[in-house]
Amino acid sequence: MDEAAFIAALRALPLHSAARDLADDAAVLEIGSETLILTHDVLAEGVHVLQGQDPADIAWKLVAVNLSDLAAKGAEPLGVLLGHTLGDGDERFLEGLREVLETYQVPLLGGDTVKSESPRQWGCTAIGRATHSPAPSRTGAKQGDALFVTGPLGAALAGFEALRDGTGADSAAYRRPTPLVDEGRALAPLVTAMMDISDGLLLDARRMAEASGIGLDIDTAAVPLALPEDRREEALRWGDDYQLLFAADPRATLPVPAFRIGTAIAASEHPLLLDGAPPASTDRLGYLHR
Amino acid sequence: MDEAAFIAALRALPLHSAARDLADDAAVLEIGSETLILTHDVLAEGVHVLQGQDPADIAWKLVAVNLSDLAAKGAEPLGVLLGHTLGDGDERFLEGLREVLETYQVPLLGGDTVKSESPRQWGCTAIGRATHSPAPSRTGAKQGDALFVTGPLGAALAGFEALRDGTGADSAAYRRPTPLVDEGRALAPLVTAMMDISDGLLLDARRMAEASGIGLDIDTAAVPLALPEDRREEALRWGDDYQLLFAADPRATLPVPAFRIGTAIAASEHPLLLDGAPPASTDRLGYLHR
Repeated sequence: MDEAAFIAALRALPLHSAARDLADDAAVLEIGSETLILTHDVLAEGVHVLQGQDPADIAWKLVAVNLSDLAAKGAEPLGVLLGHTLGDGDERFLEGLREVLETYQVPLLGGDTVKSESPRQWGCTAIGRATHSPAPSRTGAKQGDALFVTGPLGAALAGFEALRDGTGADSAAYRRPTPLVDEGRALAPLVTAMMDISDGLLLDARRMAEASGIGLDIDTAAVPLALPEDRREEALRWGDDYQLLFAADPRATLPVPAFRIGTAIAASEHPLLLDGAPPASTDRLGYLHR
Repeated sequence: MDEAAFIAALRALPLHSAARDLADDAAVLEIGSETLILTHDVLAEGVHVLQGQDPADIAWKLVAVNLSDLAAKGAEPLGVLLGHTLGDGDERFLEGLREVLETYQVPLLGGDTVKSESPRQWGCTAIGRATHSPAPSRTGAKQGDALFVTGPLGAALAGFEALRDGTGADSAAYRRPTPLVDEGRALAPLVTAMMDISDGLLLDARRMAEASGIGLDIDTAAVPLALPEDRREEALRWGDDYQLLFAADPRATLPVPAFRIGTAIAASEHPLLLDGAPPASTDRLGYLHR
């Protein structure tokens, strides 16, 4: 079964959680007076991390991508649980884990270890507490909102190429993504919709548009780049940058630096427009199946 | 790195959670006036499930073993998140998932899917709310307590053999373990220590003794069996039965059926005694690495 079909079937289960959460990377769980945010991401050898990549980077990325999901909900991280496949480089894995937990001051709550053959997998569950109610989701963007991104795109692509090709150029943006936890908390009270860009700007923006029932018209020249101008098209489609994408009133005073890259418009048959026109139907928008 | 060394290193991390939780299968997280219980278990093809086993059974077991960890804490399940490796039999996986979620009325909150080669893995995080404070742990058994088990041991072993050998005998106890969620909640207010038996009675009882700083003397003839008498030794060591093991005042009126199988005694160099004598040093107590 392909991923889309499997996820559709999951969502059709009688006990899938409430509709509000379905379109999001993170689950929202109200308990007592608190709103908890829960997220679970898996990294697989050869899929999300390069074969032979430093296990310290794997540990960092595993935790960081989950913290990024919490950041998009404006949540304060409370802790993580790990599912770890034992193997070569476990000392390095522990070193990277220590670094990411200390950097973001997130407790390790528990987890499980397993012995298994390659390709190995690593899972992480992060739990956080919403700092603003309702927690931002993909679903709230309104016609007339401005669309913003917190920083330049393409840094992870450049880092990936440097690592893959052994050029010696800086690959940290790919190996050690930075979850924007503080930025997400600061933005949560004033955004109408927010998500992290994990699968590429265009694909993720289309998801926000579809979830919100509006259209998003992106001014492609306004998107800040971490790559040379002649690679703009790629930077719009590559994932792994973990910048925050959000919609807000265009007159809002933003508490963190952000770049206006588009406008929320009326819904039409095209949830995503690039400079006022629909993408060519053959366009690959992003990395749907990573 | 072997599992014990890896876990020891995890526990030495500066941000590992508080000491009280270290000895347990589940993490305890206080938030506001609520006490949350979090657990994460991984199943791997060829390790925890037989190659070629019905994916519906894998889904059931994946959720059930996590609910069993919640049961041991007397927790009410609030939901689960899944990490699923796509592949053959996904329709059956979804069917088993639906069955276990409906049976225990547990919502699916979210998760992640990944494409990867065999051996596949599946992860599950369960979150619950403690119904009694403090939530039972392995650490509270006191000298003079009686040791109880909620039901017979060896049923999973018999089921495993039936499935492996294709005898046609009932294999449900192995394929579809029953988490004792209601029993755990009923017992939580009166136990001094509680855990589920996942790795074998003797190994798990020794863990409880070590965590509690007492000794446990097991009356081996009193352990109820789901196997013929001549397989008693195996039944004491085989895991996967997910019965609850608990210590309580011997005069306590128990709210659920349970069998007294031993007594908590003073700590000594031998945390576990069998009929008053330490196990032979070469004894294999259970399935440490499953």
